[in-house]
Amino acid sequence: MGDQSSCRIVFIGAGNVAYNLANELYSKGINIIQVYSRTIDAAKELAQQIGADHTNAISNISRDADIYFCCLPDNILQSFLEQWKPSNGLIVHTAGSLSIDILTPFVTSYGVFYPLQTFSKIKRTNFENIPICIETNTTENGNILKSIANRISSQVFEITSDQRKTLHVAAVFSCNFVNHMYAISEILLKEKNIPFEILYPLIKETTDKTMQYSPSSVQTGPAIRNDENILKEHINSLNDQPEFQSIYAKISQSIQNINKQYD
Amino acid sequence: MGDQSSCRIVFIGAGNVAYNLANELYSKGINIIQVYSRTIDAAKELAQQIGADHTNAISNISRDADIYFCCLPDNILQSFLEQWKPSNGLIVHTAGSLSIDILTPFVTSYGVFYPLQTFSKIKRTNFENIPICIETNTTENGNILKSIANRISSQVFEITSDQRKTLHVAAVFSCNFVNHMYAISEILLKEKNIPFEILYPLIKETTDKTMQYSPSSVQTGPAIRNDENILKEHINSLNDQPEFQSIYAKISQSIQNINKQYD
Repeated sequence: MGDQSSCRIVFIGAGNVAYNLANELYSKGINIIQVYSRTIDAAKELAQQIGADHTNAISNISRDADIYFCCLPDNILQSFLEQWKPSNGLIVHTAGSLSIDILTPFVTSYGVFYPLQTFSKIKRTNFENIPICIETNTTENGNILKSIANRISSQVFEITSDQRKTLHVAAVFSCNFVNHMYAISEILLKEKNIPFEILYPLIKETTDKTMQYSPSSVQTGPAIRNDENILKEHINSLNDQPEFQSIYAKISQSIQNINKQYD
Repeated sequence: MGDQSSCRIVFIGAGNVAYNLANELYSKGINIIQVYSRTIDAAKELAQQIGADHTNAISNISRDADIYFCCLPDNILQSFLEQWKPSNGLIVHTAGSLSIDILTPFVTSYGVFYPLQTFSKIKRTNFENIPICIETNTTENGNILKSIANRISSQVFEITSDQRKTLHVAAVFSCNFVNHMYAISEILLKEKNIPFEILYPLIKETTDKTMQYSPSSVQTGPAIRNDENILKEHINSLNDQPEFQSIYAKISQSIQNINKQYD
Protein backbone atom coordinates (compact mmCIF):
# COMPACT_ATOMS: atom_id res chain seq x y z
CA MET A 1 0.00 0.00 0.00
CA GLY A 2 2.91 2.41 -0.70
CA ASP A 3 0.77 4.28 -3.23
CA GLN A 4 -2.30 5.33 -1.27
CA SER A 5 -4.29 6.19 -4.43
CA SER A 6 -4.84 2.48 -4.93
CA CYS A 7 -6.12 1.83 -1.43
CA ARG A 8 -9.85 1.58 -0.81
CA ILE A 9 -11.31 3.53 2.05
CA VAL A 10 -14.64 3.33 3.88
CA PHE A 11 -15.96 6.21 5.96
CA ILE A 12 -17.98 5.30 9.05
CA GLY A 13 -19.94 8.42 9.94
CA ALA A 14 -21.02 11.44 7.92
CA GLY A 15 -20.80 14.23 10.49
CA ASN A 16 -18.58 17.32 10.50
CA VAL A 17 -15.25 15.48 10.64
CA ALA A 18 -16.21 12.83 8.06
CA TYR A 19 -17.68 15.46 5.76
CA ASN A 20 -14.54 17.59 5.72
CA LEU A 21 -11.97 14.79 5.81
CA ALA A 22 -13.62 12.62 3.17
CA ASN A 23 -14.03 15.56 0.79
CA GLU A 24 -10.39 16.56 1.31
CA LEU A 25 -9.07 13.02 0.72
CA TYR A 26 -11.29 12.70 -2.35
CA SER A 27 -9.96 15.99 -3.74
CA LYS A 28 -6.43 14.56 -3.45
CA GLY A 29 -7.35 11.50 -5.50
CA ILE A 30 -7.87 9.03 -2.68
CA ASN A 31 -10.42 6.33 -3.38
CA ILE A 32 -13.35 6.26 -0.97
CA ILE A 33 -15.64 3.38 -1.83
CA GLN A 34 -18.40 3.69 0.76
CA VAL A 35 -19.95 5.93 3.40
CA TYR A 36 -21.88 4.46 6.32
CA SER A 37 -24.09 6.57 8.56
CA ARG A 38 -27.07 5.75 10.77
CA THR A 39 -28.73 8.66 8.99
CA ILE A 40 -29.29 7.56 5.41
CA ASP A 41 -29.61 11.11 4.07
CA ALA A 42 -26.28 12.15 5.55
CA ALA A 43 -24.61 9.02 4.16
CA LYS A 44 -26.11 9.63 0.74
CA GLU A 45 -25.21 13.31 0.59
CA LEU A 46 -21.56 12.76 1.48
CA ALA A 47 -21.28 9.65 -0.71
CA GLN A 48 -22.56 11.57 -3.73
CA GLN A 49 -19.99 14.32 -3.21
CA ILE A 50 -17.10 11.85 -3.28
CA GLY A 51 -18.36 9.28 -5.78
CA ALA A 52 -18.90 6.53 -3.19
CA ASP A 53 -21.62 4.04 -2.33
CA HIS A 54 -23.61 4.57 0.84
CA THR A 55 -25.43 2.53 3.43
CA ASN A 56 -27.13 2.93 6.79
CA ALA A 57 -26.96 -0.78 7.60
CA ILE A 58 -23.99 -1.95 9.63
CA SER A 59 -24.21 -5.38 7.99
CA ASN A 60 -23.77 -3.78 4.56
CA ILE A 61 -20.47 -2.12 5.41
CA SER A 62 -17.96 -3.33 2.83
CA ARG A 63 -15.74 -6.15 4.12
CA ASP A 64 -12.84 -5.69 1.70
CA ALA A 65 -11.67 -2.10 2.17
CA ASP A 66 -8.07 -1.36 3.16
CA ILE A 67 -8.80 1.40 5.66
CA TYR A 68 -11.89 2.26 7.70
CA PHE A 69 -12.08 5.81 9.05
CA CYS A 70 -14.45 5.77 12.04
CA CYS A 71 -15.59 9.39 12.47
CA LEU A 72 -18.28 8.75 15.07
CA PRO A 73 -19.23 10.68 18.17
CA ASP A 74 -16.80 9.70 20.95
CA ASN A 75 -19.52 8.20 23.09
CA ILE A 76 -20.86 5.77 20.51
CA LEU A 77 -17.65 4.38 18.97
CA GLN A 78 -17.37 1.53 21.49
CA SER A 79 -20.91 0.24 21.05
CA PHE A 80 -20.66 0.66 17.28
CA LEU A 81 -17.53 -1.53 17.19
CA GLU A 82 -19.28 -4.16 19.29
CA GLN A 83 -22.12 -4.35 16.79
CA TRP A 84 -19.99 -4.07 13.68
CA LYS A 85 -17.31 -6.68 14.57
CA PRO A 86 -14.78 -5.54 11.92
CA SER A 87 -12.92 -8.47 10.43
CA ASN A 88 -10.01 -7.00 8.51
CA GLY A 89 -8.41 -3.80 7.25
CA LEU A 90 -6.80 -0.94 9.13
CA ILE A 91 -9.35 0.50 11.55
CA VAL A 92 -8.80 4.14 12.42
CA HIS A 93 -10.65 6.52 14.69
CA THR A 94 -10.47 10.32 14.48
CA ALA A 95 -11.40 11.27 18.05
CA GLY A 96 -9.25 13.60 20.12
CA SER A 97 -10.45 12.25 23.41
CA LEU A 98 -10.32 8.48 22.84
CA SER A 99 -7.29 6.31 23.49
CA ILE A 100 -6.00 4.07 20.73
CA ASP A 101 -6.73 1.19 23.17
CA ILE A 102 -10.45 1.38 22.48
CA LEU A 103 -9.69 -0.40 19.17
CA THR A 104 -7.45 -3.16 20.60
CA PRO A 105 -10.19 -5.72 21.40
CA PHE A 106 -11.61 -5.60 17.89
CA VAL A 107 -8.84 -5.82 15.29
CA THR A 108 -5.15 -6.48 14.79
CA SER A 109 -4.47 -3.42 12.64
CA TYR A 110 -5.51 -0.06 14.05
CA GLY A 111 -4.62 3.54 14.65
CA VAL A 112 -5.72 7.10 15.26
CA PHE A 113 -5.87 9.88 12.69
CA TYR A 114 -6.81 13.04 14.59
CA PRO A 115 -7.06 16.29 12.64
CA LEU A 116 -6.75 19.09 15.20
CA GLN A 117 -9.34 21.54 13.97
CA THR A 118 -12.92 22.59 14.55
CA PHE A 119 -15.10 21.40 11.68
CA SER A 120 -18.54 22.28 10.44
CA LYS A 121 -20.49 21.65 7.27
CA ILE A 122 -21.20 25.32 6.62
CA LYS A 123 -17.55 25.98 5.84
CA ARG A 124 -15.31 23.47 4.01
CA THR A 125 -11.90 23.33 5.67
CA ASN A 126 -8.61 23.48 3.86
CA PHE A 127 -6.36 20.88 5.51
CA GLU A 128 -3.05 22.20 4.25
CA ASN A 129 -1.84 23.54 7.61
CA ILE A 130 -4.00 21.46 9.93
CA PRO A 131 -1.98 19.35 12.36
CA ILE A 132 -2.76 15.67 11.87
CA CYS A 133 -1.91 13.57 14.90
CA ILE A 134 -1.10 9.97 14.12
CA GLU A 135 -0.84 6.96 16.42
CA THR A 136 -0.82 3.33 15.30
CA ASN A 137 -0.26 -0.14 16.71
CA THR A 138 2.61 -0.86 14.31
CA THR A 139 5.25 1.17 12.45
CA GLU A 140 3.91 -0.17 9.16
CA ASN A 141 0.41 1.14 9.91
CA GLY A 142 2.02 4.39 11.00
CA ASN A 143 3.67 4.71 7.59
CA ILE A 144 0.37 4.08 5.84
CA LEU A 145 -1.48 6.76 7.84
CA LYS A 146 1.39 9.23 7.55
CA SER A 147 1.49 8.76 3.81
CA ILE A 148 -2.24 9.59 3.63
CA ALA A 149 -1.89 12.50 6.07
CA ASN A 150 0.98 13.96 4.03
CA ARG A 151 -1.25 14.03 0.97
CA ILE A 152 -3.53 16.59 2.61
CA SER A 153 -1.39 18.39 5.21
CA SER A 154 2.17 19.59 5.76
CA GLN A 155 1.73 19.25 9.55
CA VAL A 156 1.82 15.56 10.47
CA PHE A 157 2.80 14.54 14.01
CA GLU A 158 3.20 11.32 15.97
CA ILE A 159 1.20 11.92 19.15
CA THR A 160 0.54 9.34 21.87
CA SER A 161 -2.91 8.77 23.37
CA ASP A 162 -1.75 10.43 26.58
CA GLN A 163 -0.52 13.49 24.71
CA ARG A 164 -3.63 13.59 22.55
CA LYS A 165 -5.85 13.65 25.61
CA THR A 166 -4.09 16.77 26.88
CA LEU A 167 -4.15 18.24 23.40
CA HIS A 168 -7.90 17.77 23.33
CA VAL A 169 -8.33 19.51 26.70
CA ALA A 170 -6.10 22.36 25.48
CA ALA A 171 -8.17 22.56 22.29
CA VAL A 172 -11.33 22.91 24.39
CA PHE A 173 -9.75 25.90 26.19
CA SER A 174 -8.40 27.53 23.00
CA CYS A 175 -11.45 26.91 20.83
CA ASN A 176 -14.67 26.14 22.71
CA PHE A 177 -13.92 28.29 25.76
CA VAL A 178 -12.52 31.14 23.68
CA ASN A 179 -15.69 31.04 21.63
CA HIS A 180 -17.72 31.21 24.84
CA MET A 181 -15.82 34.35 25.90
CA TYR A 182 -16.91 35.85 22.57
CA ALA A 183 -20.49 34.67 23.14
CA ILE A 184 -20.59 36.35 26.57
CA SER A 185 -19.24 39.57 25.05
CA GLU A 186 -21.90 39.45 22.37
CA ILE A 187 -24.68 39.04 24.96
CA LEU A 188 -23.35 41.89 27.13
CA LEU A 189 -23.04 44.25 24.16
CA LYS A 190 -26.46 43.38 22.79
CA GLU A 191 -28.04 44.61 26.02
CA LYS A 192 -26.49 48.03 25.37
CA ASN A 193 -27.29 48.08 21.65
CA ILE A 194 -23.68 47.81 20.63
CA PRO A 195 -22.91 45.56 17.64
CA PHE A 196 -20.50 42.71 18.42
CA GLU A 197 -18.54 43.71 15.30
CA ILE A 198 -17.01 46.60 17.23
CA LEU A 199 -14.77 43.99 18.92
CA TYR A 200 -13.42 42.47 15.67
CA PRO A 201 -10.18 44.47 15.55
CA LEU A 202 -9.50 43.70 19.22
CA ILE A 203 -10.23 40.00 18.70
CA LYS A 204 -7.98 39.87 15.67
CA GLU A 205 -5.12 41.67 17.41
CA THR A 206 -5.39 39.47 20.52
CA THR A 207 -5.14 36.32 18.45
CA ASP A 208 -2.36 37.66 16.24
CA LYS A 209 -0.33 38.59 19.33
CA THR A 210 -0.79 35.15 20.88
CA MET A 211 0.56 33.56 17.73
CA GLN A 212 3.56 35.90 17.66
CA TYR A 213 4.51 35.81 21.32
CA SER A 214 3.84 33.44 24.21
CA PRO A 215 0.29 34.10 25.52
CA SER A 216 1.35 34.47 29.16
CA SER A 217 3.93 37.09 28.13
CA VAL A 218 1.37 39.34 26.40
CA GLN A 219 -1.42 39.28 29.02
CA THR A 220 -2.94 42.74 29.53
CA GLY A 221 -5.96 44.13 31.37
CA PRO A 222 -7.09 44.97 34.90
CA ALA A 223 -6.36 41.55 36.44
CA ILE A 224 -2.68 41.43 35.52
CA ARG A 225 -2.30 45.11 36.52
CA ASN A 226 -3.89 44.24 39.87
CA ASP A 227 -6.24 47.15 39.28
CA GLU A 228 -8.64 46.30 42.11
CA ASN A 229 -10.89 49.33 41.48
CA ILE A 230 -11.67 48.30 37.93
CA LEU A 231 -12.02 44.64 38.88
CA LYS A 232 -14.57 45.60 41.55
CA GLU A 233 -16.43 47.92 39.20
CA HIS A 234 -16.60 45.28 36.46
CA ILE A 235 -17.80 42.66 38.91
CA ASN A 236 -20.47 45.03 40.24
CA SER A 237 -21.58 45.86 36.73
CA LEU A 238 -22.32 42.15 36.21
CA ASN A 239 -24.73 41.94 39.17
CA ASP A 240 -27.61 41.02 36.89
CA GLN A 241 -25.58 38.25 35.27
CA PRO A 242 -24.33 36.17 38.24
CA GLU A 243 -22.93 33.44 36.01
CA PHE A 244 -20.83 35.86 33.96
CA GLN A 245 -19.91 37.63 37.18
CA SER A 246 -18.45 34.50 38.71
CA ILE A 247 -16.60 33.62 35.49
CA TYR A 248 -15.16 37.15 35.52
CA ALA A 249 -13.97 36.75 39.11
CA LYS A 250 -12.56 33.28 38.61
CA ILE A 251 -10.58 34.00 35.45
CA SER A 252 -9.26 37.28 36.85
CA GLN A 253 -8.04 35.41 39.92
CA SER A 254 -6.42 32.77 37.73
CA ILE A 255 -4.64 35.43 35.63
CA GLN A 256 -3.17 36.85 38.83
CA ASN A 257 -2.18 33.41 40.14
CA ILE A 258 -0.51 32.33 36.90
CA ASN A 259 1.40 35.56 36.78
CA LYS A 260 2.78 34.82 40.27
CA GLN A 261 3.63 31.20 39.46
CA TYR A 262 5.20 31.47 36.04
CA ASP A 263 6.79 34.93 35.94
CA MET B 1 -10.46 74.51 14.97
CA GLY B 2 -12.00 73.01 11.82
CA ASP B 3 -8.55 72.13 10.48
CA GLN B 4 -7.04 69.95 13.16
CA SER B 5 -3.51 70.24 11.74
CA SER B 6 -3.33 73.71 13.26
CA CYS B 7 -4.40 72.62 16.72
CA ARG B 8 -1.79 72.09 19.40
CA ILE B 9 -1.94 68.90 21.43
CA VAL B 10 -0.34 67.85 24.72
CA PHE B 11 -0.04 64.19 25.72
CA ILE B 12 -0.32 63.41 29.42
CA GLY B 13 1.23 59.98 29.88
CA ALA B 14 3.71 57.99 27.79
CA GLY B 15 2.46 54.43 28.30
CA ASN B 16 1.13 51.96 25.73
CA VAL B 17 -1.92 54.01 24.68
CA ALA B 18 -0.07 57.34 24.54
CA TYR B 19 2.83 55.76 22.67
CA ASN B 20 0.62 54.31 19.94
CA LEU B 21 -1.91 57.12 19.70
CA ALA B 22 0.62 59.97 19.71
CA ASN B 23 2.73 58.27 17.05
CA GLU B 24 -0.35 57.67 14.89
CA LEU B 25 -1.61 61.26 15.20
CA TYR B 26 1.90 62.56 14.47
CA SER B 27 2.10 60.38 11.35
CA LYS B 28 -1.12 62.04 10.12
CA GLY B 29 0.35 65.52 10.48
CA ILE B 30 -1.22 66.46 13.81
CA ASN B 31 0.86 68.82 15.92
CA ILE B 32 1.81 67.46 19.34
CA ILE B 33 3.74 70.09 21.24
CA GLN B 34 4.53 68.33 24.52
CA VAL B 35 4.61 64.98 26.32
CA TYR B 36 4.28 64.79 30.09
CA SER B 37 5.09 61.64 32.05
CA ARG B 38 6.11 61.04 35.66
CA THR B 39 8.90 58.95 34.15
CA ILE B 40 11.22 61.39 32.41
CA ASP B 41 12.79 58.74 30.15
CA ALA B 42 9.40 57.63 28.85
CA ALA B 43 8.38 61.27 28.24
CA LYS B 44 11.65 61.98 26.44
CA GLU B 45 11.55 58.85 24.27
CA LEU B 46 8.01 59.48 23.02
CA ALA B 47 8.59 63.23 22.64
CA GLN B 48 11.64 62.62 20.44
CA GLN B 49 9.67 60.29 18.16
CA ILE B 50 7.03 62.92 17.50
CA GLY B 51 9.09 66.12 17.56
CA ALA B 52 7.60 67.41 20.83
CA ASP B 53 8.96 68.88 24.06
CA HIS B 54 8.81 66.79 27.19
CA THR B 55 8.52 67.26 30.93
CA ASN B 56 8.02 65.24 34.08
CA ALA B 57 6.87 68.24 36.15
CA ILE B 58 3.14 68.85 36.34
CA SER B 59 3.78 72.58 36.78
CA ASN B 60 5.61 72.66 33.44
CA ILE B 61 2.69 71.27 31.43
CA SER B 62 1.98 73.80 28.67
CA ARG B 63 -0.97 76.07 29.52
CA ASP B 64 -1.83 77.10 25.96
CA ALA B 65 -2.54 73.84 24.10
CA ASP B 66 -5.91 73.28 22.41
CA ILE B 67 -6.35 69.63 23.43
CA TYR B 68 -4.89 67.56 26.26
CA PHE B 69 -4.99 63.78 25.83
CA CYS B 70 -4.81 62.21 29.29
CA CYS B 71 -3.58 58.64 28.74
CA LEU B 72 -2.99 57.75 32.38
CA PRO B 73 -3.73 54.57 34.30
CA ASP B 74 -7.42 54.60 35.26
CA ASN B 75 -6.67 54.64 38.95
CA ILE B 76 -4.46 57.73 38.94
CA LEU B 77 -6.38 60.09 36.61
CA GLN B 78 -8.48 61.59 39.40
CA SER B 79 -5.56 62.45 41.67
CA PHE B 80 -3.54 63.72 38.70
CA LEU B 81 -6.33 66.15 37.76
CA GLU B 82 -6.51 67.37 41.36
CA GLN B 83 -2.82 68.21 41.31
CA TRP B 84 -2.73 69.59 37.79
CA LYS B 85 -5.77 71.90 37.97
CA PRO B 86 -6.12 72.38 34.20
CA SER B 87 -7.20 75.91 33.30
CA ASN B 88 -8.22 75.79 29.64
CA GLY B 89 -8.32 73.66 26.50
CA LEU B 90 -10.30 70.54 25.69
CA ILE B 91 -9.41 67.85 28.26
CA VAL B 92 -9.80 64.30 27.02
CA HIS B 93 -9.25 60.95 28.66
CA THR B 94 -8.72 57.67 26.83
CA ALA B 95 -9.88 55.17 29.45
CA GLY B 96 -12.45 52.51 28.69
CA SER B 97 -13.58 52.14 32.27
CA LEU B 98 -13.90 55.77 33.39
CA SER B 99 -17.03 57.86 33.00
CA ILE B 100 -16.83 61.23 31.29
CA ASP B 101 -18.06 62.67 34.60
CA ILE B 102 -14.64 62.29 36.18
CA LEU B 103 -13.62 65.38 34.18
CA THR B 104 -16.64 67.58 35.05
CA PRO B 105 -15.29 69.13 38.27
CA PHE B 106 -12.10 70.32 36.58
CA VAL B 107 -12.89 71.98 33.24
CA THR B 108 -15.68 73.32 31.06
CA SER B 109 -14.56 71.58 27.87
CA TYR B 110 -14.03 67.83 28.02
CA GLY B 111 -14.53 64.48 26.43
CA VAL B 112 -13.49 60.87 25.98
CA PHE B 113 -11.47 59.45 23.08
CA TYR B 114 -11.35 55.68 23.64
CA PRO B 115 -9.55 53.55 21.04
CA LEU B 116 -10.86 50.01 21.49
CA GLN B 117 -7.71 47.99 21.08
CA THR B 118 -4.99 46.30 23.11
CA PHE B 119 -1.76 48.28 22.82
CA SER B 120 1.85 47.54 23.56
CA LYS B 121 5.15 49.19 22.71
CA ILE B 122 6.63 46.07 21.12
CA LYS B 123 4.22 46.31 18.18
CA ARG B 124 3.09 49.65 16.69
CA THR B 125 -0.62 49.55 15.96
CA ASN B 126 -2.23 50.66 12.72
CA PHE B 127 -5.36 52.59 13.70
CA GLU B 128 -7.14 52.38 10.35
CA ASN B 129 -9.83 49.93 11.48
CA ILE B 130 -9.70 50.50 15.22
CA PRO B 131 -13.04 51.66 16.66
CA ILE B 132 -12.66 55.04 18.30
CA CYS B 133 -15.40 55.75 20.84
CA ILE B 134 -16.13 59.43 21.31
CA GLU B 135 -18.10 61.17 24.07
CA THR B 136 -18.01 64.90 24.80
CA ASN B 137 -19.77 67.49 26.93
CA THR B 138 -20.83 69.56 23.89
CA THR B 139 -21.59 68.89 20.24
CA GLU B 140 -18.84 71.30 19.25
CA ASN B 141 -16.25 69.34 21.23
CA GLY B 142 -17.70 66.19 19.69
CA ASN B 143 -17.03 67.56 16.23
CA ILE B 144 -13.46 68.42 17.16
CA LEU B 145 -12.70 64.92 18.49
CA LYS B 146 -14.50 63.23 15.58
CA SER B 147 -12.50 65.24 13.11
CA ILE B 148 -9.28 64.06 14.77
CA ALA B 149 -10.52 60.46 15.06
CA ASN B 150 -11.46 60.42 11.37
CA ARG B 151 -7.89 61.33 10.47
CA ILE B 152 -6.63 58.03 11.85
CA SER B 153 -9.58 55.62 11.69
CA SER B 154 -12.58 54.80 9.54
CA GLN B 155 -14.46 53.44 12.59
CA VAL B 156 -15.60 56.37 14.73
CA PHE B 157 -18.55 55.91 17.09
CA GLU B 158 -20.46 58.02 19.60
CA ILE B 159 -20.58 55.87 22.71
CA THR B 160 -21.97 56.93 26.10
CA SER B 161 -20.14 56.33 29.38
CA ASP B 162 -22.67 53.64 30.27
CA GLN B 163 -22.13 51.86 26.94
CA ARG B 164 -18.38 52.25 27.18
CA LYS B 165 -18.32 50.60 30.58
CA THR B 166 -20.03 47.52 29.15
CA LEU B 167 -17.77 47.66 26.11
CA HIS B 168 -14.78 47.59 28.41
CA VAL B 169 -16.10 44.53 30.29
CA ALA B 170 -16.78 42.80 26.95
CA ALA B 171 -13.26 43.68 25.81
CA VAL B 172 -11.87 42.03 28.96
CA PHE B 173 -13.75 38.83 28.04
CA SER B 174 -12.77 38.92 24.35
CA CYS B 175 -9.15 39.95 24.84
CA ASN B 176 -7.74 39.38 28.33
CA PHE B 177 -9.79 36.26 29.13
CA VAL B 178 -9.33 34.79 25.66
CA ASN B 179 -5.60 35.30 26.09
CA HIS B 180 -5.78 33.50 29.43
CA MET B 181 -7.47 30.52 27.75
CA TYR B 182 -4.48 30.42 25.40
CA ALA B 183 -2.08 30.72 28.37
CA ILE B 184 -3.74 27.76 30.12
CA SER B 185 -3.50 25.71 26.92
CA GLU B 186 0.17 26.57 26.62
CA ILE B 187 0.87 25.45 30.20
CA LEU B 188 -1.04 22.17 29.75
CA LEU B 189 0.74 21.35 26.48
CA LYS B 190 4.17 22.22 27.85
CA GLU B 191 3.77 19.51 30.51
CA LYS B 192 3.36 16.95 27.72
CA ASN B 193 6.15 18.39 25.54
CA ILE B 194 3.78 19.57 22.86
CA PRO B 195 4.56 22.96 21.29
CA PHE B 196 1.76 25.53 21.66
CA GLU B 197 2.14 26.24 17.91
CA ILE B 198 0.20 23.04 17.18
CA LEU B 199 -2.95 24.99 18.18
CA TYR B 200 -2.39 27.92 15.77
CA PRO B 201 -4.67 26.64 12.97
CA LEU B 202 -7.43 25.89 15.49
CA ILE B 203 -7.06 29.31 17.12
CA LYS B 204 -7.14 31.03 13.75
CA GLU B 205 -10.20 29.10 12.58
CA THR B 206 -12.08 29.69 15.84
CA THR B 207 -11.55 33.42 15.58
CA ASP B 208 -12.32 33.56 11.86
CA LYS B 209 -15.60 31.72 12.48
CA THR B 210 -16.62 34.07 15.28
CA MET B 211 -16.13 37.01 12.96
CA GLN B 212 -18.17 35.38 10.20
CA TYR B 213 -21.06 34.05 12.27
CA SER B 214 -22.49 34.85 15.69
CA PRO B 215 -20.29 33.19 18.35
CA SER B 216 -23.17 31.48 20.14
CA SER B 217 -24.29 29.94 16.84
CA VAL B 218 -20.92 28.28 16.15
CA GLN B 219 -20.18 26.85 19.59
CA THR B 220 -18.76 23.30 19.37
CA GLY B 221 -17.18 20.86 21.80
CA PRO B 222 -18.17 18.45 24.57
CA ALA B 223 -20.15 20.96 26.69
CA ILE B 224 -22.59 21.98 23.96
CA ARG B 225 -22.95 18.34 22.91
CA ASN B 226 -23.71 17.46 26.55
CA ASP B 227 -21.07 14.77 26.25
CA GLU B 228 -20.88 14.00 29.96
CA ASN B 229 -18.28 11.24 29.54
CA ILE B 230 -15.75 13.54 27.93
CA LEU B 231 -16.54 16.36 30.34
CA LYS B 232 -15.87 14.03 33.28
CA GLU B 233 -12.70 12.67 31.71
CA HIS B 234 -11.36 16.14 31.00
CA ILE B 235 -12.17 17.29 34.51
CA ASN B 236 -10.46 14.22 35.97
CA SER B 237 -7.42 14.80 33.78
CA LEU B 238 -7.04 18.24 35.42
CA ASN B 239 -6.83 16.83 38.97
CA ASP B 240 -3.32 18.22 39.41
CA GLN B 241 -4.44 21.67 38.28
CA PRO B 242 -7.43 22.44 40.51
CA GLU B 243 -7.66 26.02 39.30
CA PHE B 244 -7.85 25.03 35.63
CA GLN B 245 -10.18 22.22 36.62
CA SER B 246 -12.69 24.58 38.20
CA ILE B 247 -12.44 27.00 35.23
CA TYR B 248 -13.13 24.04 32.95
CA ALA B 249 -16.20 23.04 34.95
CA LYS B 250 -17.57 26.56 35.26
CA ILE B 251 -17.22 27.53 31.60
CA SER B 252 -18.64 24.20 30.43
CA GLN B 253 -21.64 24.75 32.70
CA SER B 254 -22.08 28.26 31.33
CA ILE B 255 -21.93 27.03 27.71
CA GLN B 256 -24.74 24.61 28.52
CA ASN B 257 -26.78 27.28 30.32
CA ILE B 258 -26.43 29.85 27.55
CA ASN B 259 -27.44 27.27 25.01
CA LYS B 260 -30.65 26.65 26.97
CA GLN B 261 -31.40 30.36 27.46
CA TYR B 262 -30.67 31.78 24.04
CA ASP B 263 -31.32 28.95 21.61
